[in-house]
Amino acid sequence: MKEIKGGITAPKGFEAAGVHCGIKKNKPDLALVYSDIPGPAYAMFTSNKVKAAPVQVSIKKIRNRRAQAIVVNSGIANTCTGKKGIKDAQSMSKLTAQELKIKEEDVLIASTGHIGEPLPMCKIEEGIKQAKSLLSSGGGRQAAEAIVTTDTFVKEISVETDISGRGKNKVKIGGIAKGAGMISPNLATMLCFITTDACISEDALEEAMKSAVNKSFNQISIDADMSTNDTVFIIANGRAGNKKIKTWHKKKKLRVKDENFDYFSQALNFVCISLAKMIVRDGEGATKLIEVKVEGAPFPKDARRIARAIASSSLVKTAIAGASPNWGRVMSALGAAHTKIDPDKVDIYFDSLLTVKDGMGIDSISPKLREVLKQNEIKITIHLNQGNHQTTFWGCDLTEKYVRINKRYV
Amino acid sequence: MKEIKGGITAPKGFEAAGVHCGIKKNKPDLALVYSDIPGPAYAMFTSNKVKAAPVQVSIKKIRNRRAQAIVVNSGIANTCTGKKGIKDAQSMSKLTAQELKIKEEDVLIASTGHIGEPLPMCKIEEGIKQAKSLLSSGGGRQAAEAIVTTDTFVKEISVETDISGRGKNKVKIGGIAKGAGMISPNLATMLCFITTDACISEDALEEAMKSAVNKSFNQISIDADMSTNDTVFIIANGRAGNKKIKTWHKKKKLRVKDENFDYFSQALNFVCISLAKMIVRDGEGATKLIEVKVEGAPFPKDARRIARAIASSSLVKTAIAGASPNWGRVMSALGAAHTKIDPDKVDIYFDSLLTVKDGMGIDSISPKLREVLKQNEIKITIHLNQGNHQTTFWGCDLTEKYVRINKRYV
Repeated sequence: MKEIKGGITAPKGFEAAGVHCGIKKNKPDLALVYSDIPGPAYAMFTSNKVKAAPVQVSIKKIRNRRAQAIVVNSGIANTCTGKKGIKDAQSMSKLTAQELKIKEEDVLIASTGHIGEPLPMCKIEEGIKQAKSLLSSGGGRQAAEAIVTTDTFVKEISVETDISGRGKNKVKIGGIAKGAGMISPNLATMLCFITTDACISEDALEEAMKSAVNKSFNQISIDADMSTNDTVFIIANGRAGNKKIKTWHKKKKLRVKDENFDYFSQALNFVCISLAKMIVRDGEGATKLIEVKVEGAPFPKDARRIARAIASSSLVKTAIAGASPNWGRVMSALGAAHTKIDPDKVDIYFDSLLTVKDGMGIDSISPKLREVLKQNEIKITIHLNQGNHQTTFWGCDLTEKYVRINKRYV
Repeated sequence: MKEIKGGITAPKGFEAAGVHCGIKKNKPDLALVYSDIPGPAYAMFTSNKVKAAPVQVSIKKIRNRRAQAIVVNSGIANTCTGKKGIKDAQSMSKLTAQELKIKEEDVLIASTGHIGEPLPMCKIEEGIKQAKSLLSSGGGRQAAEAIVTTDTFVKEISVETDISGRGKNKVKIGGIAKGAGMISPNLATMLCFITTDACISEDALEEAMKSAVNKSFNQISIDADMSTNDTVFIIANGRAGNKKIKTWHKKKKLRVKDENFDYFSQALNFVCISLAKMIVRDGEGATKLIEVKVEGAPFPKDARRIARAIASSSLVKTAIAGASPNWGRVMSALGAAHTKIDPDKVDIYFDSLLTVKDGMGIDSISPKLREVLKQNEIKITIHLNQGNHQTTFWGCDLTEKYVRINKRYV
């Protein structure tokens, strides 16, 4: 597997465009992603009970497990907008289908932005027409730019991996994301759209995507607030011409795991983890990426709870913002994580610096720890020494700027 | 029931003192509370798996359900201090028992402050001797001052309530607390000590205290971080001479609820809720008290989850800090609260201002809402319209000052 250029339009058969339709001032605010043929698709959404209209509409649309296009606007979330909101979301997908001359059921939609405001449908309609006319296989970057709001950098990645079968096939995966750098819209919405030219079964795509999301977007936290619009889409158009990837295949009448599934899955994990880390690194006001690795847990859920609790603790996050060697806050967050672990067995490393041994701080570690904490990427490794399970979780520091950004209202 | 003066020494038979023993610079840092006779006692502790040594020691001490004195130091938490920490905590209670000439098992202890540092036992010993010599029935305020660290105000309250029985009896309850205004110690530790001269059974005291804590200290959040040292103690010495309060008593051979239990319980609730509100109002960097009332929930746990989620949301807290009329953040926090409520039935009031009706924002409410949010006490009332259960939760706003305070390390 290797990184390649092209982002979401790197895979064969995909085109994209990003345009300014007029929701935001002077910034691209509508993205269109299109595959020349429909293919297996999968989607995951926010578990927030308050779901944006586009989320409610896309949940129904993805039931056919197939898609050919994605249309997204940024600036207005189309959330808490009642029946009109649902109608607008449906129109958005209908207009896109008409322009592209594809089936309406194959168009997925997403929105991000301000809650409670209606979509300006005339502008959206014009935007869709314009985006259609600008679709190109080099348009990945434009689409990535049109889905961000105040993210400080554009988030895209693409990779190529070998798939064995009838000769070697190259399969490509591309992804774009928008993270938590939204001032005006009030919410840290996470959007991620992935394309691949792999030929893959619907079941295999679903399994690979679920697994990748659990290792990436479900392992990050900016401020523990969950958005009403979080959405992940993947479309696989099969243009790579590889032997179809399945979760299992038959060999001498035995059901065996398809090794190509693992290759595909690894590449997809890499794409999702890369985008997830870009999102936390670009968290509102964040200056540092925090990676929390928990090892030696009795159960997987213990590892996750502890990693999440540490990466989400306001006191840990502020300590890291201030490069202040407060290992006690890590111990306290760990103890508060609703597990049955014994804190007296715990060792903690900051980078390679042993800071806590058997639940007690190492004497006079503070000056060294302060130096480690001045880096812009902090790795905290927790050895629970109580089992064999592990996990990694990512977060960011909490700064005055986070508060300043979120106090504002536009 | 009426408020009276005297704090923790308002009830008959209680004396207290607060002294400077030298853990902190130039500030009182050791408090002693003493009853002239032992009596029923109850204690509640942090559920953090990482428990401070004084918590571990007091958990064992309270098993006899009786106490006569409380000794507390501030400045050092005696947490993550291993076997030496336990020994020091035991010595602290032993020294106090020797000075007061009471049973060691009747002395409860607590600490708050910096994690990972050992207690300076010589200073503590001197402090206990000095505090003993200064004990007085007017010493409540000094004790309250000695348990705070960087709280911006001292937290104490006392009330008197009538108890029927052999004539009317006046029963008094006094309380002191320290909240979340700690810079040096890294942790928002909550300590609360309550005295009463009520004659009350151990069971009744336990039931009343549990209920009061659930309505007060379990209903507040500053930053969702749970301390390793949180402790609540209550001692009842029976000096009021009232007929013993029980949860139940016999009347014509029937088991009926003791009405005096309700009077006592109401007064204790008032004491605990008052102290809890003082704690959030004095949260680190806080400028506003937020009261979230959730009504019409299908189950009590739904009401609590939603109230807590809203009061704890960083985005809601920053919006309120900035008086920014972002009702969408309240809807989003409500939806993220792991319940099965239908957001389309929800109405939200800020004070008496209807802001959200049937899950949708009221048009052009922003200017009025902005005015409401400029107050220093914000009441948010959520009508779920999906049942009969309700709850109230208190929090505070999130400001740049919170971050600034917690970035520092002393």
